[in-house]
Amino acid sequence: MYKILIVCIGNEILLGKTINTNLAYLGKMLFQSGYKISTSTTIPDNPEIIQSTLSSAWKKYDIIISMGGLGPTQDDLTRKSIAHSFGKSLEFKPKIWEKIKNQRKQNGQKVLKSLRSMAHVPGDFTTMENRIGTAPGLHYSQQKKEFFALPGVPDEMKYIFGNSIIPYLKQTLPGTPRLIKTIRTATIREIDLHEKLKRVKPAAESKIAFLPKPGLVDIRIESLKQTDLDRIVQNIQAEVGQYIYGFDHDTIQSACHEKLLKNNKTLALAESCTGGLIQNYFTDNPGSSEYFLGGVVSYSNFAKKKFLDVKQKTLEQHGAVSRETVHEMLEGTRSGFGSDIALAVSGIAGPAGGTKEKPVGLVYVGLWFEGKIDIRACNFSGTRLQIKQQSAVMALFMLFKSLK
Amino acid sequence: MYKILIVCIGNEILLGKTINTNLAYLGKMLFQSGYKISTSTTIPDNPEIIQSTLSSAWKKYDIIISMGGLGPTQDDLTRKSIAHSFGKSLEFKPKIWEKIKNQRKQNGQKVLKSLRSMAHVPGDFTTMENRIGTAPGLHYSQQKKEFFALPGVPDEMKYIFGNSIIPYLKQTLPGTPRLIKTIRTATIREIDLHEKLKRVKPAAESKIAFLPKPGLVDIRIESLKQTDLDRIVQNIQAEVGQYIYGFDHDTIQSACHEKLLKNNKTLALAESCTGGLIQNYFTDNPGSSEYFLGGVVSYSNFAKKKFLDVKQKTLEQHGAVSRETVHEMLEGTRSGFGSDIALAVSGIAGPAGGTKEKPVGLVYVGLWFEGKIDIRACNFSGTRLQIKQQSAVMALFMLFKSLK
Repeated sequence: MYKILIVCIGNEILLGKTINTNLAYLGKMLFQSGYKISTSTTIPDNPEIIQSTLSSAWKKYDIIISMGGLGPTQDDLTRKSIAHSFGKSLEFKPKIWEKIKNQRKQNGQKVLKSLRSMAHVPGDFTTMENRIGTAPGLHYSQQKKEFFALPGVPDEMKYIFGNSIIPYLKQTLPGTPRLIKTIRTATIREIDLHEKLKRVKPAAESKIAFLPKPGLVDIRIESLKQTDLDRIVQNIQAEVGQYIYGFDHDTIQSACHEKLLKNNKTLALAESCTGGLIQNYFTDNPGSSEYFLGGVVSYSNFAKKKFLDVKQKTLEQHGAVSRETVHEMLEGTRSGFGSDIALAVSGIAGPAGGTKEKPVGLVYVGLWFEGKIDIRACNFSGTRLQIKQQSAVMALFMLFKSLK
Repeated sequence: MYKILIVCIGNEILLGKTINTNLAYLGKMLFQSGYKISTSTTIPDNPEIIQSTLSSAWKKYDIIISMGGLGPTQDDLTRKSIAHSFGKSLEFKPKIWEKIKNQRKQNGQKVLKSLRSMAHVPGDFTTMENRIGTAPGLHYSQQKKEFFALPGVPDEMKYIFGNSIIPYLKQTLPGTPRLIKTIRTATIREIDLHEKLKRVKPAAESKIAFLPKPGLVDIRIESLKQTDLDRIVQNIQAEVGQYIYGFDHDTIQSACHEKLLKNNKTLALAESCTGGLIQNYFTDNPGSSEYFLGGVVSYSNFAKKKFLDVKQKTLEQHGAVSRETVHEMLEGTRSGFGSDIALAVSGIAGPAGGTKEKPVGLVYVGLWFEGKIDIRACNFSGTRLQIKQQSAVMALFMLFKSLK
């Protein structure tokens, strides 16, 4: 087992300005690849402390990964401290400077002199490509010991970690990977899932954990043997298969996205209480313009009437949050956009606006699919954002179930 | 300045199963009271590692706070390791055991034998009351050095920290509270901000830090004296005032929300590449239905023509991503919804769909306000989500600037 140290550099973490999500990300990814973090230390942006931490750690650990302090502003000091920790000095690398300049120019950004520091690399270090930002990662290897320095910006850190560090470690210092499978469910509560799955026993050295998010619960299975893992997954599928929308990297959004592309169906939406959330989800997927024609955020009665042909009489008799209104929203969306499928949502997200008959959390979610209409009345609880979220999940899951 | 170490004990943090929000909480609360965490270390639930970490740290730090490992399950080992670190052994405290039993009974919980371990306290240690859970906090003081052990459950940790540790430290080792102000800016990059503010020198014992997010940069100023803080804030305002939308707890969304309510103006939106993101932001604010009438997510040319009266000829001649199309989207939104203000966005979020003339990241953001139209051509870089995000920030900031 390798001794692994993660060094998080940043005043903002110690001052409580930033929650250290990077560490959780590294911990998870390393564990999946068969490594375990031994210790993590968080230190301020202080050259002496960076230097003393790294030089004493280099004696004790097999793999050290530092995060933070490589951006354009604090750059100089951290870069220098890293170099000195390993008894090196900084060297200007014209090739890297060319690359940085080209990247900036391509993006229509100014090439500022202050960026030059990012082309300074400690002697004997190599760089790791960063396609998301400007600062490359740094790598030093000596006698089967490895040091990696990453920027603190999460997307840049993840890019370099996934594209350079993991492949390198797998080849050079291979770990013992644990088998992990995540089963993803929607529209069932953790407590109900727990009840339904109490007969499913994990094998020795296997674990089942539940990870709930608004409207969704992930079931995470961890095992050393493929046969154990497969058996547990099959048992869970047999018990709660109807709530499963995917596995591992699937999201409810991506699962719907894939199915819409495969089914070659077009989609339009009418959102009231979700306020654009569902459409935002769809359009986060590259290629969603293949099927997503558009939608209306009908946040006022006026918008419902004008853009979705909801009748004044329906709004008066049944209210904006009603099965009848959602029915007309579906018809209006379908015919307005000429789509194969329509989704419509109207509800009370709160915290204000609830009544005894129609409390906060009452949401009607409707699906129009090949002439058939399905409308569900839901009673969600939680904050405004959680209610929006659960409504979106219900709409997405209804769509998912209707597609082959 | 006291040297403070936070020791986080827990496999779940190192395996990436839990995000360490406790550390951010302690960092923030300590800083507000005039203390700064020097270092934080995260270690596994391993007796030898706990013991070696604490005994070597006791020589180097003035204040050590450990979190985790005091719950009913791993309890025994951590408690013993703590005792041994300070050369003590565990002693059973009948009074604490009585207290635990009474608390359980009052809450209708079973008094399990396994809970007895929580009444074992290292010799010469005192306990700190925990009204939220069962395990009391532990405190050891020697020659002006302080060690505190807290449970890892966030609510219990916060209770003991706020009710026992902070009052004790304030009296025994008073800190020097720092003054903090955050200036929030939009639509200017960190590097440009840095360039413009290089003449603004912080006073002695003051600091200026930049915290970037897509489209936004927060400037965080930290000082010991109110006069210094005020001067720095004024200087920054003088240099980059045009990019500032708020201070401290403001967000660009909340700043727009407040202004729209105050100005008593209604708003409608047309979103293409942002795909509902901006409308989702507005509708996250409780009370947004006061001004937000709704909008169209015009993800297809058909939707642009049908719902926003964009002309076929305009689309053919200039394309969907063009100043001309956004102009017509604004007019169509304004007249369609009858709103006082309209926002419209059309661009290429990527990763596909870019051309030489219209590359990924080209986004037109338009504002209609009291008959005046303002359309900006932007060249953003980054991932699809970052481009959506920066487009949304630009739209929100243009709206913010137009309102009084």
